Amino acid sequence: MPDKKVIEDFFRSLQDTICTGLENADGKARFKEDLWIRPEGGGGRTRVIDNGAIFEKGGVNFSAVHGPCPEFLKKEAGIPLDEKIDFLATGVSLVIHPNHPFVPIIHMNVRYFEAGDMWWFGGGIDLTPHYINEEEAKFFHQHLKRVCDAHNSTYYPEFKKWADEYFFIKHRNETRGIGGIFFDRLSGNEQMTKQQRFDFVKSVGESFLKAYLPLVENNRDKPYNEDNRNWQLLRRGRYAEFNLVYDRGTKFGLFTNGRTESILMSLPPMAKWEYDNKPALNSLEIRTLQMLRKPSTWGI
Amino acid sequence: MPDKKVIEDFFRSLQDTICTGLENADGKARFKEDLWIRPEGGGGRTRVIDNGAIFEKGGVNFSAVHGPCPEFLKKEAGIPLDEKIDFLATGVSLVIHPNHPFVPIIHMNVRYFEAGDMWWFGGGIDLTPHYINEEEAKFFHQHLKRVCDAHNSTYYPEFKKWADEYFFIKHRNETRGIGGIFFDRLSGNEQMTKQQRFDFVKSVGESFLKAYLPLVENNRDKPYNEDNRNWQLLRRGRYAEFNLVYDRGTKFGLFTNGRTESILMSLPPMAKWEYDNKPALNSLEIRTLQMLRKPSTWGI
Repeated sequence: MPDKKVIEDFFRSLQDTICTGLENADGKARFKEDLWIRPEGGGGRTRVIDNGAIFEKGGVNFSAVHGPCPEFLKKEAGIPLDEKIDFLATGVSLVIHPNHPFVPIIHMNVRYFEAGDMWWFGGGIDLTPHYINEEEAKFFHQHLKRVCDAHNSTYYPEFKKWADEYFFIKHRNETRGIGGIFFDRLSGNEQMTKQQRFDFVKSVGESFLKAYLPLVENNRDKPYNEDNRNWQLLRRGRYAEFNLVYDRGTKFGLFTNGRTESILMSLPPMAKWEYDNKPALNSLEIRTLQMLRKPSTWGI
Repeated sequence: MPDKKVIEDFFRSLQDTICTGLENADGKARFKEDLWIRPEGGGGRTRVIDNGAIFEKGGVNFSAVHGPCPEFLKKEAGIPLDEKIDFLATGVSLVIHPNHPFVPIIHMNVRYFEAGDMWWFGGGIDLTPHYINEEEAKFFHQHLKRVCDAHNSTYYPEFKKWADEYFFIKHRNETRGIGGIFFDRLSGNEQMTKQQRFDFVKSVGESFLKAYLPLVENNRDKPYNEDNRNWQLLRRGRYAEFNLVYDRGTKFGLFTNGRTESILMSLPPMAKWEYDNKPALNSLEIRTLQMLRKPSTWGI
């Protein structure tokens, strides 16, 4: 059974691996690091990259916070409010906004929570292309399916559905992107031990670069025009809408006095809003919109 | 006692007056109008201006919606859920984002609600300069104080405080701008009749152009540089954060299936987010930030 030290160490080293991989892919920019300390216990390493050759803005954050379990977490976890108990929450969270309209935005999160005898893992990876390329969507989902299937054949179908439901911008009637996998509160049961849950979360984290870098390489040299850039900025507006209106992690962070700059590193470097923008008939833009309005199985 | 037809007609004609005044000030762009109908009763006129000589994007919306009172409004108004009752909500709401960093963003809302015997007015005006000019802040607040004082000497101090509390971005520990006045649920009491409340709301609406246009004229020809524009885009990011995370009208609209494009016309045409942006010591930017961290009386 992996103890919390092992899990925390894994997340810390995962942050290193991912940052190195992204820096190598970018070839120009480097992550800058901010260390921060939580007065009540623990802290984090926020790492941000900007103005890269391909990554316009992105963050890869590690944190491990602990101490007496605050009231809101007790409520969240169903722990009696008068119980004195310590908690640990640790994980890696990342969002990358590329400068190129044909390179998708990506988000990943892997995390672990424990308080007393309770523990669970959560996380996921999802992709937000400004322009949906069906071949690439299929590649991405097949990759995630393989990662999931190696651990449990129920994971992919269940977590894919969860992502489609979660990354939904209700007031736009659009999904944020093409989804991916999303899971939460994976604890132990008759089928799955803690080690098995941890092994799965490790695979998800370790699979990130293999899921994303091919999409960067496929697209980074494609020519694009001002209209493509404009559409990218409008889609980033939607990304900001999702994160600020719906995203549970963001709201949780903001409403519980989290470190605002680390939480909002997920927001795009630049975004646009046009009143009632309507892409032209048969345009690439309208095809993307149509796909965002109807979750797909991507032929899997 | 003004009936609902009179109030609705006033708001409709206020929209016309304000749009004409803003078009004349801009000198280049014109408002485009979208009429929309609410299936359950009523509708609105959304008017949007963009790419003007000075107004980069703005909306001045009128709506008057009515019909059987929906459940969420009954809860909001304290009406028993099993009571069959009709409601009317009507008003004007506007947000203007100028292209010039030294011309402030402005927001105004005036509205009326009734259901059965219940009725109230709400609204306010508040200013969000990208750069706070203390003389102009004072002018703006003095103007609002005069408008308020003509109706009730308690209005300005009370509604100014309300605005400072309401337009606060908690996770940034900043106010959105320099505030103004904010009021809600103004109904009848021993001191104030419905006519008197309506007269006050009329004055607020009619004072809008006189409060805002001098600030446009004072600043529109001032030279500015790329750094000023960059700061404007960062402040617009904060504006989007406030509107998407906290603004009650926005959330109410989005969560009750309002017309998304009309609600989100308030979002800026373009905005930026930089990780941990810190203005230079003694810069105009840091002076603005300092003032946003501490509500002022502006010498009034």
